[in-house]
Amino acid sequence: MGLGVVGGGVASALLQDPSTVTARVGIPVNLRRVLVRDRSRPRDIELPPGMLTANAEDILDDPDIDILIEVMGGSDPAAAYFRRALSSGKHVVSANKEVMAKEGADLMALARANHVSLLFEASVGGGIPIVGCLMNELAANDVYSIRTIINGTTNFILTRMAHQRTAFADALSEAQGLGYAEADPTNDVEGIDAAYKLTVLATLAYGCRFSPDDVFRQGISALEPQDFRYAEEFGYAIKSLAIADQNGEQVQLRVYPALVPFDNMLANVNGVYNAVEVHGSLCGQVLFHGMGAGRGPTTSAVLGDLVETARLVRDSAVPGGPRELSQHLGVRPIDALRTRYYIRLIVADQAGVLAQIARALGDEDISIASVLQKDADAETQSAEIVIMTHPALESSVQQALLTIGRLDPVRRVGNMLRIEE
Amino acid sequence: MGLGVVGGGVASALLQDPSTVTARVGIPVNLRRVLVRDRSRPRDIELPPGMLTANAEDILDDPDIDILIEVMGGSDPAAAYFRRALSSGKHVVSANKEVMAKEGADLMALARANHVSLLFEASVGGGIPIVGCLMNELAANDVYSIRTIINGTTNFILTRMAHQRTAFADALSEAQGLGYAEADPTNDVEGIDAAYKLTVLATLAYGCRFSPDDVFRQGISALEPQDFRYAEEFGYAIKSLAIADQNGEQVQLRVYPALVPFDNMLANVNGVYNAVEVHGSLCGQVLFHGMGAGRGPTTSAVLGDLVETARLVRDSAVPGGPRELSQHLGVRPIDALRTRYYIRLIVADQAGVLAQIARALGDEDISIASVLQKDADAETQSAEIVIMTHPALESSVQQALLTIGRLDPVRRVGNMLRIEE
Ligand SMILES: NC(=O)c1ccc[n+]([C@@H]2O[C@H](COP(=O)([O-])OP(=O)(O)OC[C@H]3O[C@@H](n4cnc5c(N)ncnc54)[C@H](OP(=O)(O)O)[C@@H]3O)[C@@H](O)[C@H]2O)c1
Ligand SMILES: NC(=O)c1ccc[n+]([C@@H]2O[C@H](COP(=O)([O-])OP(=O)(O)OC[C@H]3O[C@@H](n4cnc5c(N)ncnc54)[C@H](OP(=O)(O)O)[C@@H]3O)[C@@H](O)[C@H]2O)c1
Repeated sequence: MGLGVVGGGVASALLQDPSTVTARVGIPVNLRRVLVRDRSRPRDIELPPGMLTANAEDILDDPDIDILIEVMGGSDPAAAYFRRALSSGKHVVSANKEVMAKEGADLMALARANHVSLLFEASVGGGIPIVGCLMNELAANDVYSIRTIINGTTNFILTRMAHQRTAFADALSEAQGLGYAEADPTNDVEGIDAAYKLTVLATLAYGCRFSPDDVFRQGISALEPQDFRYAEEFGYAIKSLAIADQNGEQVQLRVYPALVPFDNMLANVNGVYNAVEVHGSLCGQVLFHGMGAGRGPTTSAVLGDLVETARLVRDSAVPGGPRELSQHLGVRPIDALRTRYYIRLIVADQAGVLAQIARALGDEDISIASVLQKDADAETQSAEIVIMTHPALESSVQQALLTIGRLDPVRRVGNMLRIEE
Repeated sequence: MGLGVVGGGVASALLQDPSTVTARVGIPVNLRRVLVRDRSRPRDIELPPGMLTANAEDILDDPDIDILIEVMGGSDPAAAYFRRALSSGKHVVSANKEVMAKEGADLMALARANHVSLLFEASVGGGIPIVGCLMNELAANDVYSIRTIINGTTNFILTRMAHQRTAFADALSEAQGLGYAEADPTNDVEGIDAAYKLTVLATLAYGCRFSPDDVFRQGISALEPQDFRYAEEFGYAIKSLAIADQNGEQVQLRVYPALVPFDNMLANVNGVYNAVEVHGSLCGQVLFHGMGAGRGPTTSAVLGDLVETARLVRDSAVPGGPRELSQHLGVRPIDALRTRYYIRLIVADQAGVLAQIARALGDEDISIASVLQKDADAETQSAEIVIMTHPALESSVQQALLTIGRLDPVRRVGNMLRIEE
């Protein structure tokens, strides 16, 4: 059986020696071609001459390639390659969250129509087998919610900020130094990567088409060390969560840093680890915890998919295929969120400020659960006020914060974070 | 597509209304027959007349039944039913750990030979999708170890004993009152249930035949409340673990109550929850946490398998099948275990006892990491000595305990527990 690989990074080291896969499948699985952009670039793995190619046709048109493995990234030209491969009867294994988030629904339909398999375990959660579980083992559940820590870079940064009280910029540099964050960290830090992954998970969990544009996103760069300190005083960690939950005929998709109570397992997921919590109608709460990225976990996922696919080829079997995306659910706007809020304000250190703030909140039907007055600074004559609200409507909180921001003694709104119980 | 169910318990409530499954599969899935022992017994679900039968032939010989779902329990007559079903081209979904532990290897081979599917997600871990993950998503890993809390009844009892300092007998009665433990609790309390489940997991993880007789077992009934107190003082919880790990060409399989450091996730799995930690060559450590039993989680697993199987039937597809059990690994005896030990002794409250004990340990090359002398009892003039050893060989510890038990001032060996770091 023949393999073609698109992309010379993540998985090709192991694919170069496919004995693991051959052992699991029982018949020889051979790597035929590896597509890269630049054949002359020095590489840390040596491939037989002639195996590297910069010409996609060498893979897409090779009838001896049964399975295309894509570890290239980006939606273009990956999607076009997938379409050609699937249409000509090649199975596809992908690690590409972006293409699956943007075009996954169409690609899955195309795979089904052509009786070939399209698997993409490595696109979300690295070594955590959440994609396959949503497709198969957990498929009988109505999924109430999926709550995840799905970006290792942000979780590393937030863990640093929480444990060492580092500033965001310093934690980011450290992550970059360790190779956990890229030179341009936007995709991770602004939640774009997490939004791609959440889109993939929600599409599978709800059997419905979603797009990354359906995801509300808030990044982590506005967090300051004192947010972690205050959250701790109230008994919470701050974690960047990616959440999908269903409410009637609507699903809400959101990525943001949130306060999570310390006794919740998600609060204790640290460093580059990822976690996924699925709350299903039958299974109850199931939590998965593991390494969300890196060469090993990604290879684990890619090769797991490859073994499964290669067994199909071995047995000339047709994949049973995932669920059809036949559900029609709406996307619930963030304004409709109802939760508790953490609000940090920088105010002039003078009497009566809190009364004005409380009034602005009360006018929007937001009631205060507790307040901390903190860190009066003699020099600037300012202080910090930290408010935890009772459950309130997001749109009301946004409205109240506009009003509060315009109050005379309020210097600025330091941060507003949502609380996930 | 037609279903036959063997056993009127766990999953039949949902099977009675198979709309969930139909929705996931896209074509009608109909329940045709349910086999029970006693048709006249009153049941909490109502089935159309004629659907209940006490005659297995009504299912096994019905050509319109494509999938047999077995939720009956026990290896006899389940194994015989499986053989007949698989041989005549019926797919099988099972929740039965005992039959899969005792005859799973042969049954999987039979399924493969007949190009039909045999899935058994519900046999281990309830709503935790560990069976499918070992077969597929994690299949590319060499599995270094699987460490699990896999019996909810024992975990409930141990959690009670730890948090309320209840005696074993009281915690057991409580579990029985809540329906978590059966009238005869032997299977749970003595680790027999866990040994079945561990056998199933190890067979899949190592691609090798194992039998429940290969599992070393120690139950939890000898634990006393003070064991939990002392373990806590040293920073450990006590959990009943089922562990498989590889060492060269051998796998060791063991079920016993062990000390687990509080900062290990397994130490924080409480009540009826289960957890499975897989340490693989590529994925690193992946942890699964969820409800290991009960109607909902079991139904989640059975229906997940059913959806997967029904998709095969829908597409007239042949299952790719799991890995062949072609590995030949030995079973490592418990005597060869090397770990740290917790030893609690009841001794006469007199000088020089510790020196004698230390000498007996030293003679077997066991060195002491720390000692607590506890609870001198004026009336009986006895005291408790708690010893934590450095890593030592199980056979040496067993030998030393024989010697120590014969020492004059030693009244009895209270407990010996292994430490899992
Ligand atoms: N790294 C991880 O931890 C991780 C984890 C999960 C998923 N993934 C996914 O795996 C994929 C690749 O990640 P990576 O870290 O290996 O990326 P990478 O280091 O940037 O490697 C990309 C590879 O694809 C080749 N390539 C890129 N665009 C191409 C094009 N248009 N035509 C031909 N070849 C092209 C590159 O060729 P050259 O070598 O010639 O530049 C390179 O070999 C992405 O989808 C990523 O999201 C990565
Ligand atoms: N309960 C759980 O939480 C759980 C979790 C995971 C897996 N499981 C597995 O699910 C299976 C069943 O568990 P359960 O709790 O439903 O057991 P159960 O309440 O004892 O039900 C067993 C059912 O099977 C029928 N049955 C038993 N032996 C039979 C025979 N020889 N011929 C025909 N019918 C027979 C019984 O018929 P009658 O109704 O006429 O007595 C009954 O309907 C077991 O393999 C168990 O290990 C259960």
